[in-house]
Amino acid sequence: MRTLYHFALCPFSREIRLMLKEKDIDHEQVTEAFWENRSAFLDINPLGNVPVFIEEDMTPFIEYAAISEYLEEAYTDRPLLGTNTRERAEARRICQWWNQHVYAEVVQPVIEERVYKFLRQQGEPDTRRLQAAYRRLPWHLELLKNILRQRPWLGGERFSLADITVASHLSVLDYFSEIAWNNNPAIKEWYAVIKSRPSFRQLLLDRVPGFKPPAHYVDLDF
Amino acid sequence: MRTLYHFALCPFSREIRLMLKEKDIDHEQVTEAFWENRSAFLDINPLGNVPVFIEEDMTPFIEYAAISEYLEEAYTDRPLLGTNTRERAEARRICQWWNQHVYAEVVQPVIEERVYKFLRQQGEPDTRRLQAAYRRLPWHLELLKNILRQRPWLGGERFSLADITVASHLSVLDYFSEIAWNNNPAIKEWYAVIKSRPSFRQLLLDRVPGFKPPAHYVDLDF
Repeated sequence: MRTLYHFALCPFSREIRLMLKEKDIDHEQVTEAFWENRSAFLDINPLGNVPVFIEEDMTPFIEYAAISEYLEEAYTDRPLLGTNTRERAEARRICQWWNQHVYAEVVQPVIEERVYKFLRQQGEPDTRRLQAAYRRLPWHLELLKNILRQRPWLGGERFSLADITVASHLSVLDYFSEIAWNNNPAIKEWYAVIKSRPSFRQLLLDRVPGFKPPAHYVDLDF
Repeated sequence: MRTLYHFALCPFSREIRLMLKEKDIDHEQVTEAFWENRSAFLDINPLGNVPVFIEEDMTPFIEYAAISEYLEEAYTDRPLLGTNTRERAEARRICQWWNQHVYAEVVQPVIEERVYKFLRQQGEPDTRRLQAAYRRLPWHLELLKNILRQRPWLGGERFSLADITVASHLSVLDYFSEIAWNNNPAIKEWYAVIKSRPSFRQLLLDRVPGFKPPAHYVDLDF
């Protein structure tokens, strides 16, 4: 059986979970408490991060971009990266913008200060770091809006990994009520459609003990 | 004419430059002073980062992973990501380990504190941040050594984007004498072979005014 090691509030784990569901790839999901540095897990991935995907033949796939590109190459029934080189490059540009830049500036500070510090018993969140992160978010949302003015989906004319990736990050921020949806109607409308996809369902029901999302978090008509 | 906008000490720019040379793709290289936020450049890439690759038909390719995957898809004569899905996943794992984790922990602090602060006239380097970065490097080098004990190249039996990526980051650190080569003979041996490839030549000759690399930096027998 294929296995995905993941953590509920890790945006990269969410990205791979959504991809697996969208591609209808049968697998088992296992929560990995990666902050505990379990030695059997470090033997597979010395860096100790999630997600890690184990194939049926037990080959491990490590680092989200290696996993997502692998899934796209190996499971071709439902392509999620576009149908030509230019579409794929645009989807990947958007993925990297969110996975690398928005993650480092906004999402990483939020989950490290609010969640990982709590799980690692490292004390209180650094509010100055959190505030700096929140100040960076509106600009990235503006850029998203500009894209959604031009096309229905972030990667182009079709739903793609770009939508999955951005929705993964936004859903983590939304768990902590960090998105001002009413100021961002175009993004809200796009996110509402993604949120109602069957692939998103389990992800919205996941809870991490000690953290309760706002009521609108699961609401499809928020 | 294809154009690559780059910066000499940006490891991601180096990665794409090496790829273009290894694939023998005719192009022009233009230094982009991205810290000056030139408006014509921001029109192409709102995030303002390098590298940016412009194709012959003027299509821009933005974010290094989107560029490298595009080059691999569009220029297939000399594959640099392995010949099957598992080889490619392993090469991509190593690329992401260095492009995301080692970059954030080691290379980014070094170039931001030493170079970008100087170029942006933001004052003196933060020595505590630099020291924290240096402390993280030996562990990543240990992991590299473990790989080189098992196979000749980082991605497997063949030279690949994994070698290009790691060499790009190490070459930037080496510009600032941050690699203790004598403590790392296996990595030194591997890097010496990469360094002597024709694709590496111009990269080693580049200088950024205000920063002089050590004598061994260009020496092929260092």
